[in-house]
Amino acid sequence: MSPAAPPSPSRPRALYGLLACVRLTAFEERAADAGRTASYEDKVVLAGLATGAFAQFERLRDRLIEAGVDPYEAMRPYQDAITAFHGRTRPADAMEALVKVYVADSILADLYREAVERTDPETRSVVHESLADSGHAEILTERLRAAAETDARLASRLGLWARRLVGEALSQAHAITERGPEVGALFGDEDVATMFGRIVDRHQARMRAVDLRD
Amino acid sequence: MSPAAPPSPSRPRALYGLLACVRLTAFEERAADAGRTASYEDKVVLAGLATGAFAQFERLRDRLIEAGVDPYEAMRPYQDAITAFHGRTRPADAMEALVKVYVADSILADLYREAVERTDPETRSVVHESLADSGHAEILTERLRAAAETDARLASRLGLWARRLVGEALSQAHAITERGPEVGALFGDEDVATMFGRIVDRHQARMRAVDLRD
Repeated sequence: MSPAAPPSPSRPRALYGLLACVRLTAFEERAADAGRTASYEDKVVLAGLATGAFAQFERLRDRLIEAGVDPYEAMRPYQDAITAFHGRTRPADAMEALVKVYVADSILADLYREAVERTDPETRSVVHESLADSGHAEILTERLRAAAETDARLASRLGLWARRLVGEALSQAHAITERGPEVGALFGDEDVATMFGRIVDRHQARMRAVDLRD
Repeated sequence: MSPAAPPSPSRPRALYGLLACVRLTAFEERAADAGRTASYEDKVVLAGLATGAFAQFERLRDRLIEAGVDPYEAMRPYQDAITAFHGRTRPADAMEALVKVYVADSILADLYREAVERTDPETRSVVHESLADSGHAEILTERLRAAAETDARLASRLGLWARRLVGEALSQAHAITERGPEVGALFGDEDVATMFGRIVDRHQARMRAVDLRD
Protein backbone atom coordinates (compact mmCIF):
# COMPACT_ATOMS: atom_id res chain seq x y z
CA MET A 1 0.00 0.00 0.00
CA SER A 2 1.41 3.33 -0.98
CA PRO A 3 1.02 6.17 1.51
CA ALA A 4 -2.24 7.99 1.00
CA ALA A 5 -1.88 10.70 -1.61
CA PRO A 6 -2.87 14.19 -0.49
CA PRO A 7 -6.47 14.78 -1.47
CA SER A 8 -6.31 15.85 -5.09
CA PRO A 9 -9.07 18.34 -5.83
CA SER A 10 -9.60 16.91 -9.30
CA ARG A 11 -10.35 13.43 -8.05
CA PRO A 12 -13.57 14.07 -6.15
CA ARG A 13 -14.63 16.35 -8.95
CA ALA A 14 -14.19 13.59 -11.51
CA LEU A 15 -15.52 10.76 -9.41
CA TYR A 16 -18.47 12.64 -7.89
CA GLY A 17 -19.30 14.06 -11.31
CA LEU A 18 -19.28 10.58 -12.85
CA LEU A 19 -21.40 9.13 -10.05
CA ALA A 20 -23.83 12.07 -10.09
CA CYS A 21 -24.28 11.55 -13.82
CA VAL A 22 -24.77 7.80 -13.33
CA ARG A 23 -27.41 8.43 -10.66
CA LEU A 24 -29.38 11.14 -12.44
CA THR A 25 -29.45 9.04 -15.61
CA ALA A 26 -30.54 6.01 -13.56
CA PHE A 27 -33.42 8.11 -12.23
CA GLU A 28 -34.50 8.95 -15.77
CA GLU A 29 -34.21 5.38 -17.05
CA ARG A 30 -36.04 3.79 -14.15
CA ALA A 31 -38.75 6.44 -14.20
CA ALA A 32 -39.21 5.80 -17.93
CA ASP A 33 -39.36 2.05 -17.23
CA ALA A 34 -41.98 2.75 -14.54
CA GLY A 35 -43.95 4.84 -17.03
CA ARG A 36 -43.99 1.99 -19.56
CA THR A 37 -45.18 -0.54 -16.96
CA ALA A 38 -48.89 -1.30 -16.81
CA SER A 39 -48.98 -3.12 -13.45
CA TYR A 40 -49.23 -0.79 -10.47
CA GLU A 41 -47.06 -3.11 -8.38
CA ASP A 42 -44.09 -3.14 -10.75
CA LYS A 43 -44.55 0.53 -11.59
CA VAL A 44 -44.25 1.44 -7.92
CA VAL A 45 -41.14 -0.71 -7.40
CA LEU A 46 -39.44 0.96 -10.37
CA ALA A 47 -40.59 4.43 -9.34
CA GLY A 48 -39.19 3.81 -5.85
CA LEU A 49 -35.85 2.74 -7.35
CA ALA A 50 -35.93 5.90 -9.48
CA THR A 51 -36.48 8.19 -6.50
CA GLY A 52 -33.73 6.33 -4.63
CA ALA A 53 -31.32 7.08 -7.48
CA PHE A 54 -32.39 10.74 -7.47
CA ALA A 55 -31.72 11.07 -3.73
CA GLN A 56 -28.22 9.68 -4.33
CA PHE A 57 -27.75 12.18 -7.15
CA GLU A 58 -28.81 15.04 -4.86
CA ARG A 59 -26.22 14.08 -2.23
CA LEU A 60 -23.42 14.03 -4.81
CA ARG A 61 -24.55 17.29 -6.40
CA ASP A 62 -24.55 18.94 -2.96
CA ARG A 63 -21.00 17.68 -2.29
CA LEU A 64 -19.84 19.09 -5.62
CA ILE A 65 -21.44 22.45 -4.83
CA GLU A 66 -19.81 22.43 -1.39
CA ALA A 67 -16.47 21.81 -3.10
CA GLY A 68 -17.08 24.88 -5.27
CA VAL A 69 -17.58 22.80 -8.40
CA ASP A 70 -20.38 23.28 -10.94
CA PRO A 71 -22.08 19.88 -10.72
CA TYR A 72 -23.29 19.97 -14.31
CA GLU A 73 -19.83 20.73 -15.67
CA ALA A 74 -18.48 17.82 -13.62
CA MET A 75 -21.15 15.47 -14.98
CA ARG A 76 -21.01 16.44 -18.64
CA PRO A 77 -17.87 14.46 -19.70
CA TYR A 78 -19.56 11.18 -18.76
CA GLN A 79 -23.07 11.75 -20.10
CA ASP A 80 -22.53 10.29 -23.58
CA ALA A 81 -20.99 7.04 -22.35
CA ILE A 82 -23.75 6.56 -19.79
CA THR A 83 -26.54 7.39 -22.22
CA ALA A 84 -25.01 4.95 -24.70
CA PHE A 85 -24.94 2.22 -22.05
CA HIS A 86 -28.67 2.68 -21.42
CA GLY A 87 -29.36 2.81 -25.14
CA ARG A 88 -27.75 -0.63 -25.50
CA THR A 89 -29.55 -2.10 -22.48
CA ARG A 90 -33.16 -0.99 -22.81
CA PRO A 91 -35.35 -3.47 -20.90
CA ALA A 92 -38.21 -5.08 -22.81
CA ASP A 93 -40.48 -5.20 -19.77
CA ALA A 94 -40.69 -4.55 -16.04
CA MET A 95 -38.91 -7.79 -15.05
CA GLU A 96 -35.97 -7.00 -17.33
CA ALA A 97 -35.91 -3.48 -15.85
CA LEU A 98 -35.73 -4.95 -12.34
CA VAL A 99 -32.95 -7.38 -13.35
CA LYS A 100 -31.08 -4.44 -14.86
CA VAL A 101 -31.15 -2.53 -11.58
CA TYR A 102 -30.14 -5.65 -9.66
CA VAL A 103 -27.28 -6.63 -11.97
CA ALA A 104 -25.88 -3.42 -13.40
CA ASP A 105 -26.26 -1.22 -10.35
CA SER A 106 -24.51 -3.77 -8.17
CA ILE A 107 -21.63 -4.12 -10.60
CA LEU A 108 -21.24 -0.38 -10.90
CA ALA A 109 -21.41 -0.02 -7.11
CA ASP A 110 -18.66 -2.67 -6.76
CA LEU A 111 -16.54 -0.78 -9.25
CA TYR A 112 -16.92 2.53 -7.45
CA ARG A 113 -16.13 0.92 -4.15
CA GLU A 114 -12.94 -0.53 -5.65
CA ALA A 115 -12.13 2.86 -7.17
CA VAL A 116 -12.22 4.68 -3.84
CA GLU A 117 -10.40 2.07 -1.80
CA ARG A 118 -7.13 3.99 -2.09
CA THR A 119 -8.53 7.52 -1.81
CA ASP A 120 -8.86 9.72 1.26
CA PRO A 121 -11.46 8.79 3.89
CA GLU A 122 -13.75 11.67 2.99
CA THR A 123 -14.04 10.73 -0.68
CA ARG A 124 -14.54 7.14 0.38
CA SER A 125 -17.32 8.05 2.74
CA VAL A 126 -19.12 10.30 0.22
CA VAL A 127 -19.01 7.55 -2.40
CA HIS A 128 -20.15 4.85 0.01
CA GLU A 129 -22.98 7.10 1.16
CA SER A 130 -23.99 7.82 -2.41
CA LEU A 131 -24.20 4.09 -3.10
CA ALA A 132 -26.25 3.36 0.01
CA ASP A 133 -29.67 1.90 -0.55
CA SER A 134 -32.57 4.28 -0.01
CA GLY A 135 -34.77 1.43 1.22
CA HIS A 136 -36.38 0.95 -2.18
CA ALA A 137 -34.13 -1.94 -3.22
CA GLU A 138 -35.21 -4.41 -0.53
CA ILE A 139 -38.12 -5.68 -2.54
CA LEU A 140 -35.96 -6.37 -5.59
CA THR A 141 -34.31 -9.63 -4.50
CA GLU A 142 -37.65 -10.89 -3.30
CA ARG A 143 -39.42 -10.21 -6.60
CA LEU A 144 -36.66 -11.71 -8.70
CA ARG A 145 -36.49 -14.85 -6.61
CA ALA A 146 -40.28 -15.25 -6.76
CA ALA A 147 -40.25 -14.83 -10.55
CA ALA A 148 -37.40 -17.32 -11.00
CA GLU A 149 -39.14 -19.89 -8.84
CA THR A 150 -42.54 -19.76 -10.51
CA ASP A 151 -41.55 -19.46 -14.17
CA ALA A 152 -38.57 -21.44 -15.48
CA ARG A 153 -38.87 -19.94 -18.96
CA LEU A 154 -38.82 -16.41 -17.59
CA ALA A 155 -35.88 -17.32 -15.33
CA SER A 156 -33.94 -18.54 -18.34
CA ARG A 157 -34.72 -15.40 -20.37
CA LEU A 158 -33.73 -13.19 -17.42
CA GLY A 159 -30.53 -15.18 -16.97
CA LEU A 160 -29.53 -14.44 -20.58
CA TRP A 161 -30.47 -10.79 -20.14
CA ALA A 162 -28.31 -10.61 -17.00
CA ARG A 163 -25.37 -12.05 -18.90
CA ARG A 164 -25.70 -9.33 -21.53
CA LEU A 165 -25.89 -6.69 -18.81
CA VAL A 166 -22.65 -7.88 -17.22
CA GLY A 167 -20.84 -7.53 -20.52
CA GLU A 168 -22.27 -4.08 -21.13
CA ALA A 169 -21.60 -2.86 -17.59
CA LEU A 170 -17.98 -4.00 -17.77
CA SER A 171 -17.43 -2.37 -21.15
CA GLN A 172 -19.01 0.84 -19.88
CA ALA A 173 -16.63 0.74 -16.94
CA HIS A 174 -13.71 0.11 -19.26
CA ALA A 175 -14.70 2.97 -21.56
CA ILE A 176 -15.02 5.36 -18.66
CA THR A 177 -11.66 4.50 -17.11
CA GLU A 178 -10.04 4.88 -20.54
CA ARG A 179 -11.72 8.14 -21.41
CA GLY A 180 -11.47 9.78 -18.01
CA PRO A 181 -7.84 9.55 -16.88
CA GLU A 182 -8.74 11.14 -13.53
CA VAL A 183 -11.12 8.29 -12.85
CA GLY A 184 -8.88 5.62 -14.38
CA ALA A 185 -6.03 6.69 -12.11
CA LEU A 186 -8.12 5.80 -9.08
CA PHE A 187 -7.75 2.13 -9.87
CA GLY A 188 -4.01 2.48 -9.49
CA ASP A 189 -1.61 -0.05 -10.95
CA GLU A 190 -3.71 -3.07 -10.28
CA ASP A 191 -4.39 -5.28 -13.23
CA VAL A 192 -7.88 -4.35 -14.42
CA ALA A 193 -8.54 -7.97 -15.38
CA THR A 194 -7.93 -9.09 -11.78
CA MET A 195 -10.35 -6.50 -10.48
CA PHE A 196 -12.97 -7.40 -13.11
CA GLY A 197 -12.55 -11.04 -12.05
CA ARG A 198 -13.46 -10.19 -8.46
CA ILE A 199 -16.45 -8.19 -9.65
CA VAL A 200 -17.71 -11.04 -11.81
CA ASP A 201 -17.38 -13.41 -8.84
CA ARG A 202 -19.56 -11.15 -6.73
CA HIS A 203 -22.07 -10.86 -9.56
CA GLN A 204 -22.33 -14.64 -9.81
CA ALA A 205 -22.97 -14.92 -6.09
CA ARG A 206 -25.80 -12.39 -6.46
CA MET A 207 -27.31 -14.38 -9.34
CA ARG A 208 -27.31 -17.53 -7.22
CA ALA A 209 -29.00 -15.56 -4.42
CA VAL A 210 -32.04 -15.03 -6.63
CA ASP A 211 -31.90 -18.45 -8.32
CA LEU A 212 -31.09 -17.02 -11.71
CA ARG A 213 -28.54 -18.94 -13.67
CA ASP A 214 -25.74 -16.88 -15.10
CA MET B 1 -66.57 -4.41 12.78
CA SER B 2 -65.15 -2.14 15.39
CA PRO B 3 -67.49 0.31 17.18
CA ALA B 4 -64.70 2.90 17.01
CA ALA B 5 -64.70 2.82 13.20
CA PRO B 6 -64.26 6.20 11.52
CA PRO B 7 -67.51 7.93 10.51
CA SER B 8 -67.45 6.54 7.00
CA PRO B 9 -64.79 4.00 6.11
CA SER B 10 -65.47 4.43 2.42
CA ARG B 11 -64.53 8.11 2.41
CA PRO B 12 -60.84 7.84 3.24
CA ARG B 13 -60.67 4.88 0.88
CA ALA B 14 -62.08 6.96 -1.95
CA LEU B 15 -60.23 10.16 -1.15
CA TYR B 16 -56.86 8.55 -0.37
CA GLY B 17 -57.23 6.36 -3.45
CA LEU B 18 -57.92 9.39 -5.62
CA LEU B 19 -55.02 11.35 -4.15
CA ALA B 20 -52.65 8.38 -4.37
CA CYS B 21 -53.55 8.02 -8.04
CA VAL B 22 -53.07 11.75 -8.61
CA ARG B 23 -49.64 11.64 -6.96
CA LEU B 24 -48.32 8.51 -8.66
CA THR B 25 -49.44 9.84 -12.03
CA ALA B 26 -47.83 13.22 -11.25
CA PHE B 27 -44.59 11.34 -10.57
CA GLU B 28 -44.78 9.69 -13.97
CA GLU B 29 -45.65 12.88 -15.83
CA ARG B 30 -42.98 15.02 -14.21
CA ALA B 31 -40.35 12.31 -14.61
CA ALA B 32 -41.25 12.06 -18.29
CA ASP B 33 -41.02 15.87 -18.55
CA ALA B 34 -37.61 15.68 -16.87
CA GLY B 35 -36.55 12.99 -19.35
CA ARG B 36 -37.51 15.20 -22.30
CA THR B 37 -35.59 18.19 -20.93
CA ALA B 38 -32.09 18.82 -22.27
CA SER B 39 -30.91 21.34 -19.66
CA TYR B 40 -29.54 19.74 -16.50
CA GLU B 41 -30.92 22.58 -14.37
CA ASP B 42 -34.54 22.19 -15.49
CA LYS B 43 -34.26 18.40 -15.59
CA VAL B 44 -33.22 18.36 -11.95
CA VAL B 45 -36.02 20.70 -10.86
CA LEU B 46 -38.59 18.48 -12.60
CA ALA B 47 -37.02 15.28 -11.27
CA GLY B 48 -37.13 16.73 -7.75
CA LEU B 49 -40.81 17.57 -8.18
CA ALA B 50 -41.36 14.02 -9.45
CA THR B 51 -39.71 12.42 -6.41
CA GLY B 52 -41.70 14.77 -4.17
CA ALA B 53 -44.93 13.50 -5.75
CA PHE B 54 -43.77 9.92 -5.29
CA ALA B 55 -43.07 10.46 -1.59
CA GLN B 56 -46.62 11.82 -1.21
CA PHE B 57 -47.95 8.77 -3.05
CA GLU B 58 -46.04 6.47 -0.70
CA ARG B 59 -47.57 8.09 2.38
CA LEU B 60 -51.10 7.68 1.01
CA ARG B 61 -50.46 4.11 -0.09
CA ASP B 62 -49.20 3.28 3.40
CA ARG B 63 -52.33 4.81 4.97
CA LEU B 64 -54.51 2.71 2.67
CA ILE B 65 -52.60 -0.44 3.58
CA GLU B 66 -52.91 0.41 7.28
CA ALA B 67 -56.67 0.77 6.76
CA GLY B 68 -56.74 -2.74 5.26
CA VAL B 69 -57.44 -1.43 1.76
CA ASP B 70 -55.70 -2.58 -1.40
CA PRO B 71 -54.18 0.71 -2.57
CA TYR B 72 -54.30 -0.23 -6.23
CA GLU B 73 -57.98 -1.14 -6.08
CA ALA B 74 -58.65 2.21 -4.41
CA MET B 75 -56.72 4.07 -7.11
CA ARG B 76 -58.09 2.30 -10.17
CA PRO B 77 -61.48 4.11 -10.48
CA TYR B 78 -59.72 7.46 -10.97
CA GLN B 79 -56.89 6.45 -13.28
CA ASP B 80 -58.65 7.11 -16.60
CA ALA B 81 -59.80 10.62 -15.67
CA ILE B 82 -56.33 11.55 -14.40
CA THR B 83 -54.54 10.07 -17.40
CA ALA B 84 -56.94 11.95 -19.68
CA PHE B 85 -56.19 15.21 -17.86
CA HIS B 86 -52.46 14.75 -18.48
CA GLY B 87 -53.11 13.76 -22.08
CA ARG B 88 -54.88 17.09 -22.61
CA THR B 89 -52.20 19.13 -20.83
CA ARG B 90 -48.89 17.83 -22.14
CA PRO B 91 -46.28 20.59 -21.72
CA ALA B 92 -44.34 21.59 -24.82
CA ASP B 93 -41.15 22.30 -22.87
CA ALA B 94 -39.62 22.51 -19.41
CA MET B 95 -41.07 25.95 -18.63
CA GLU B 96 -44.58 24.79 -19.49
CA ALA B 97 -43.98 21.71 -17.33
CA LEU B 98 -42.99 23.94 -14.41
CA VAL B 99 -46.03 26.18 -14.90
CA LYS B 100 -48.19 23.07 -14.96
CA VAL B 101 -46.91 21.95 -11.58
CA TYR B 102 -47.31 25.47 -10.17
CA VAL B 103 -50.83 26.02 -11.50
CA ALA B 104 -52.52 22.63 -11.60
CA ASP B 105 -50.99 21.15 -8.46
CA SER B 106 -51.97 24.20 -6.43
CA ILE B 107 -55.54 24.11 -7.71
CA LEU B 108 -55.86 20.42 -7.01
CA ALA B 109 -54.36 20.92 -3.54
CA ASP B 110 -56.91 23.68 -2.86
CA LEU B 111 -59.70 21.37 -3.96
CA TYR B 112 -58.57 18.54 -1.72
CA ARG B 113 -58.23 20.88 1.21
CA GLU B 114 -61.79 22.08 0.62
CA ALA B 115 -62.94 18.48 0.29
CA VAL B 116 -61.63 17.46 3.70
CA GLU B 117 -62.73 20.55 5.59
CA ARG B 118 -65.80 18.76 6.90
CA THR B 119 -64.27 15.33 7.48
CA ASP B 120 -62.78 13.87 10.65
CA PRO B 121 -59.46 15.27 11.92
CA GLU B 122 -57.51 12.16 10.96
CA THR B 123 -58.57 12.22 7.31
CA ARG B 124 -57.88 15.93 7.28
CA SER B 125 -54.41 15.47 8.67
CA VAL B 126 -53.52 12.63 6.25
CA VAL B 127 -54.64 14.72 3.29
CA HIS B 128 -52.84 17.84 4.47
CA GLU B 129 -49.70 15.77 5.04
CA SER B 130 -49.97 14.23 1.60
CA LEU B 131 -50.17 17.70 0.06
CA ALA B 132 -47.19 19.03 2.00
CA ASP B 133 -44.24 20.15 -0.04
CA SER B 134 -41.23 17.84 -0.02
CA GLY B 135 -38.88 20.80 -0.30
CA HIS B 136 -38.56 20.44 -4.06
CA ALA B 137 -41.16 23.11 -4.87
CA GLU B 138 -39.32 26.09 -3.36
CA ILE B 139 -37.35 26.74 -6.49
CA LEU B 140 -40.47 26.82 -8.66
CA THR B 141 -41.75 30.31 -7.81
CA GLU B 142 -38.25 31.66 -8.20
CA ARG B 143 -37.72 30.18 -11.64
CA LEU B 144 -41.11 31.28 -12.93
CA ARG B 145 -40.64 34.82 -11.67
CA ALA B 146 -37.17 35.00 -13.23
CA ALA B 147 -38.51 33.74 -16.57
CA ALA B 148 -41.44 36.19 -16.55
CA GLU B 149 -39.14 39.10 -15.78
CA THR B 150 -36.55 38.45 -18.45
CA ASP B 151 -38.74 37.38 -21.35
CA ALA B 152 -42.07 39.13 -21.95
CA ARG B 153 -42.96 36.89 -24.89
CA LEU B 154 -42.38 33.76 -22.83
CA ALA B 155 -44.38 35.29 -19.96
CA SER B 156 -47.29 35.87 -22.30
CA ARG B 157 -47.15 32.33 -23.69
CA LEU B 158 -46.96 30.88 -20.17
CA GLY B 159 -49.89 33.06 -19.10
CA LEU B 160 -52.05 31.57 -21.86
CA TRP B 161 -50.87 28.09 -20.98
CA ALA B 162 -51.78 28.70 -17.33
CA ARG B 163 -55.27 29.80 -18.36
CA ARG B 164 -55.77 26.54 -20.25
CA LEU B 165 -54.52 24.57 -17.26
CA VAL B 166 -57.05 26.22 -14.94
CA GLY B 167 -59.88 25.22 -17.22
CA GLU B 168 -58.61 21.65 -17.51
CA ALA B 169 -57.95 21.30 -13.78
CA LEU B 170 -61.45 22.49 -12.94
CA SER B 171 -63.07 20.18 -15.46
CA GLN B 172 -61.02 17.29 -14.14
CA ALA B 173 -62.23 18.14 -10.63
CA HIS B 174 -65.80 18.33 -11.89
CA ALA B 175 -65.54 15.00 -13.68
CA ILE B 176 -64.12 13.29 -10.61
CA THR B 177 -66.76 14.61 -8.22
CA GLU B 178 -69.46 13.51 -10.68
CA ARG B 179 -68.03 10.06 -11.32
CA GLY B 180 -67.03 9.27 -7.76
CA PRO B 181 -70.05 9.94 -5.55
CA GLU B 182 -68.00 9.12 -2.44
CA VAL B 183 -65.65 11.95 -3.28
CA GLY B 184 -68.41 14.27 -4.52
CA ALA B 185 -70.24 13.88 -1.20
CA LEU B 186 -67.24 15.35 0.61
CA PHE B 187 -68.00 18.75 -0.82
CA GLY B 188 -71.36 18.66 0.91
CA ASP B 189 -74.24 20.86 -0.17
CA GLU B 190 -72.17 23.87 -0.97
CA ASP B 191 -72.64 25.34 -4.37
CA VAL B 192 -69.74 24.02 -6.44
CA ALA B 193 -69.61 27.31 -8.37
CA THR B 194 -68.96 29.24 -5.14
CA MET B 195 -66.14 26.91 -4.23
CA PHE B 196 -64.65 27.08 -7.73
CA GLY B 197 -64.83 30.88 -7.44
CA ARG B 198 -62.68 30.82 -4.30
CA ILE B 199 -60.23 28.50 -5.98
CA VAL B 200 -59.90 30.73 -9.02
CA ASP B 201 -59.28 33.72 -6.74
CA ARG B 202 -56.41 31.91 -5.07
CA HIS B 203 -55.03 30.88 -8.45
CA GLN B 204 -55.03 34.50 -9.62
CA ALA B 205 -53.13 35.57 -6.52
CA ARG B 206 -50.52 32.91 -7.28
CA MET B 207 -50.18 34.12 -10.86
CA ARG B 208 -49.57 37.68 -9.64
CA ALA B 209 -46.94 36.32 -7.24
CA VAL B 210 -44.83 35.16 -10.20
CA ASP B 211 -45.68 38.12 -12.45
CA LEU B 212 -47.58 36.00 -14.94
CA ARG B 213 -50.73 37.56 -16.27
CA ASP B 214 -53.75 35.36 -16.14
